[in-house]
Amino acid sequence: MMYRHKVQYYETDKMGITHHSNYIRWMEEARIAFLAEKGWSYARLEDEGIISPVVSVDAHYKKTTTFNDDVAIDVCVIDFTGVKLKLGYKMYLEDKLVFEGESMHCFLNKEGRPIRLKSEYPEFYEMLDLEKENK
Amino acid sequence: MMYRHKVQYYETDKMGITHHSNYIRWMEEARIAFLAEKGWSYARLEDEGIISPVVSVDAHYKKTTTFNDDVAIDVCVIDFTGVKLKLGYKMYLEDKLVFEGESMHCFLNKEGRPIRLKSEYPEFYEMLDLEKENK
Amino acid sequence: MMYRHKVQYYETDKMGITHHSNYIRWMEEARIAFLAEKGWSYARLEDEGIISPVVSVDAHYKKTTTFNDDVAIDVCVIDFTGVKLKLGYKMYLEDKLVFEGESMHCFLNKEGRPIRLKSEYPEFYEMLDLEKENK
Amino acid sequence: MMYRHKVQYYETDKMGITHHSNYIRWMEEARIAFLAEKGWSYARLEDEGIISPVVSVDAHYKKTTTFNDDVAIDVCVIDFTGVKLKLGYKMYLEDKLVFEGESMHCFLNKEGRPIRLKSEYPEFYEMLDLEKENK
Repeated sequence: MMYRHKVQYYETDKMGITHHSNYIRWMEEARIAFLAEKGWSYARLEDEGIISPVVSVDAHYKKTTTFNDDVAIDVCVIDFTGVKLKLGYKMYLEDKLVFEGESMHCFLNKEGRPIRLKSEYPEFYEMLDLEKENK
Repeated sequence: MMYRHKVQYYETDKMGITHHSNYIRWMEEARIAFLAEKGWSYARLEDEGIISPVVSVDAHYKKTTTFNDDVAIDVCVIDFTGVKLKLGYKMYLEDKLVFEGESMHCFLNKEGRPIRLKSEYPEFYEMLDLEKENK
Repeated sequence: MMYRHKVQYYETDKMGITHHSNYIRWMEEARIAFLAEKGWSYARLEDEGIISPVVSVDAHYKKTTTFNDDVAIDVCVIDFTGVKLKLGYKMYLEDKLVFEGESMHCFLNKEGRPIRLKSEYPEFYEMLDLEKENK
Repeated sequence: MMYRHKVQYYETDKMGITHHSNYIRWMEEARIAFLAEKGWSYARLEDEGIISPVVSVDAHYKKTTTFNDDVAIDVCVIDFTGVKLKLGYKMYLEDKLVFEGESMHCFLNKEGRPIRLKSEYPEFYEMLDLEKENK
C-alpha cells in the first residue's frame, strides 16, 4: 500500500530541508495505515489487547525532501516469526527513492507479557504471515 | 523564577528561526518548573489527584530566536480565582524581550470534575494566592 | 474552506489526548492550504518575495481530541488592513467545536521591511480584502 | 562526555512513555554538544563551511523512559575514515541502559560537494581521529 505524507512547514529545519527525525514519525503513520488497511486498525489492536512496541528502527536518508513535498511511503513485511515483526519502508518523491528504513516490533499484552500470536491471535498471525510471503 | 531553554536544531524551520509552535511547548516546560519550585511537582499534583488542563493560551512574538540561543523564561501568576489560574510568561534573550504569553488553566479531579482548591487543597490554594499578590 | 488533519499517534501525550501545542501547527497547515486555494501558494508568495511572519496567536481549547480523530479546520479572514492580517480558525470533530483560535500576521519583503500590499501587490490585497468582506 | 536531557511532557505519547522518535532528536542534541566540547561548535563548523548531514541512523530501544526522567547520553566516535563518521550513543536512566544507537555522517562544503577532511580541515580531522582511538 502507498501511504502519502505532505511535508509540513514545521517539519523543516534551518538547513531548508525536512528534519531527519520526522521520517521516523512518518514510518509510524504509514505502519498504522498499513495495519488498518489489512483489517487491524489501532483501535482493533487496542480492543483485542495487543500492544506492539518499537524495538528498533533503522533509517537511510537517500535524498533530501522539503516543505510541501508529497512523499509516497511503501510499507511491507520483511520478516515475521510469530514473535517478532520486521517492517520495511521505502519513501519516494515522484519516482525518486528518498528514504529506506526498517522497524522491528514485538507483541505484548496489557500486562506487558509477550504474546504468541499463532495460538492467541491466529487471524492476526495469518495476515502477517501472508504479507511476508507476498512481499 | 527563571527557567532556561536552549533552542535545539530541530526546533528551527526553513526560515532559519525557531518555529513559533515551540514557544507554546517552552511555556509548558517553564510552567512545570515553576510549580515544582513552589513545592508542587507534576508527580505531586498527580499523586494528589489534581489535573490542570490548558484552557487557552495566547502568544506574542516580539523578536525571533534561533538554534543555540539560550532563552530565559520568567513565569508569574497573573490571576487566580480558586477556580481558574492565569499564568504570564516573558522570554528573554540576554536583556531583550523576545516573547510574551499567557495561559489559562482550570483544575479537575481524576473523574474530570472541577475542584474547588480553597476547600479541597488549601495548601495549593495558599501558594497560588500568595504568588498572585507577589507578582 | 475546510482543511482536514488526522491526529497522529506522536501528537498525543501521556494524558491520552492531543498535546495542546499541535493545534498551533494545524493552524499553520490550514492557513497555508487556505492561501493556496485562493491562488497564493507558499511557493508563489516566496517567488514574489512576500514573507508573512506570525505576530501573535491565541488558542481556545474547547474539547479534547485524540489519536486518529479526523479534525476539520475552517479558516477565515477576520480582519485585514493592508498592513496586518487577522485569521480565524474553528476546528470541528464531526459537528462538535473543539478549538477556536486566531493568528495575526504582517508582511515583509526579503530585506525584512514592511510591505504595503495595496500598492505593491494589488492582486494579493484584493483577494484578502474580498475574503474579509465575505466572512 | 555525558549530555543530559530531561524528558518533557510534550515528548510523551498516549502509551504514557517517551515517543520513540524523540530519541533521534536527543542523539542530535548530544552530538552537537559533543562536537562543541571538542572545540567544534555548530557555529564554528558553519563559519568554516562544513556541513555534516545525517546519512543513516539506527536505534535500539532497551527500556522505556517517561516525563521528567533525566536521561544521560554518552557519545563516542565508533569509526572515522576521513570521509565518513560513525558516532555511537548510549542513553542511561541512572545506571540502566535505556537506548543504544548509531549515526553515520558525511562532510560537505556549502556547494554540497564532499570534503576531504585530512587535507582541507586537518585540525578537525585530528580531533575525530584521536576520538576514534580513545573510544
